[in-house]
Amino acid sequence: MNDPFLMGDPLHPDHLVWKDDGQEKLAWHGPIFDVTLVKRSSTDGRTGDFCRVESPEWITVIPWYRNEEGKAMFVMEQQFRHGSATVTREFPAGLVEKGEDPKVAAARELLEETGSKAEKLEEIGNVSPNSAFMGNRSHFYLAEGLSHVERQNLDPNEQLDVLSIPVEEVLRDIGTGMYDNGIMLMAACFFLKECAKRPGLRDVPDERSRI
Amino acid sequence: MNDPFLMGDPLHPDHLVWKDDGQEKLAWHGPIFDVTLVKRSSTDGRTGDFCRVESPEWITVIPWYRNEEGKAMFVMEQQFRHGSATVTREFPAGLVEKGEDPKVAAARELLEETGSKAEKLEEIGNVSPNSAFMGNRSHFYLAEGLSHVERQNLDPNEQLDVLSIPVEEVLRDIGTGMYDNGIMLMAACFFLKECAKRPGLRDVPDERSRI
Repeated sequence: MNDPFLMGDPLHPDHLVWKDDGQEKLAWHGPIFDVTLVKRSSTDGRTGDFCRVESPEWITVIPWYRNEEGKAMFVMEQQFRHGSATVTREFPAGLVEKGEDPKVAAARELLEETGSKAEKLEEIGNVSPNSAFMGNRSHFYLAEGLSHVERQNLDPNEQLDVLSIPVEEVLRDIGTGMYDNGIMLMAACFFLKECAKRPGLRDVPDERSRI
Repeated sequence: MNDPFLMGDPLHPDHLVWKDDGQEKLAWHGPIFDVTLVKRSSTDGRTGDFCRVESPEWITVIPWYRNEEGKAMFVMEQQFRHGSATVTREFPAGLVEKGEDPKVAAARELLEETGSKAEKLEEIGNVSPNSAFMGNRSHFYLAEGLSHVERQNLDPNEQLDVLSIPVEEVLRDIGTGMYDNGIMLMAACFFLKECAKRPGLRDVPDERSRI
């Protein structure tokens, strides 16, 4: 097929792979991530030093239910975020502990942050959160069959409020106002892909206007 | 409205705001980001040290056109990514230079990486890429009216191939295989929101199956 923008040989990407020298060095050690440096060389003989943020795996939980009126709802949180220095509205999320299964971490974070359990917890996608400089993966779980079983049990510096918001309102407003965390846009994207398989997850009055 | 998951006072989030001591310290200086540390205190008297990755603003360009057969297409790139240590398929993207307008950066990166210009370049959204530890913003532009005007003009360590892919194929596969960069899921989410306003950007044979 004629591709007016074609450059290089994208069907055979092996020539793009940079090899590292196997000597990854710790450059900075921090509480939620480290920074490492590694030397790499390209197939055409270029070399460079590249830095990476090393963090545990991340999980995000998308807690979904229908309320008393039958409306599809998400359980969400509000908390101060130290990167943006603002209060943002997000799905429950956290770090996977050493040796912990990401799905177990998802159930744990959901319980700790919202006091709720899910009958069904399914991974609907995972991705490199930023392939340019992150070495970990971010996992996304859809949580269904929710029941509120206990009080919050937060980490020492965690402070967050919990609320329910209609699914359609979140999808309409994602990426604006308080919905200002890129990880939640990744969650929304995976959720929308899931909705293509299970339209019943949404309340869309007009098919033409849905995202 | 009855909210079975309500905790705290999410309609009045001021109690969640942590104040910093104004003494942000440089912890590590690197080629594409720095790491800073700051002390913050909560409204209920807790204190902590928090680290942040400081990077320039980011831009991502979504180059859109209709091919000779009338099919909606994206121009995309393949490159080795030093965070994931894999070759990924992405939209053109890059860093905003000091004092540069993000829209100017978007046009510049599109030209440098793909050799193309756009008649119309519109910001369709921006977001904190990771409000937990990133202090910058990520801007997303839809580029239309594309014309190929010159050869690539890449940075010394950049090496990337360019190709065109049907919009529906990208949206179907995003977050799988080579489409493995979370920033591109943010781009897809903003693009889908734009499609809710302008359905003509997509080729969707069956409304029920679209994301």
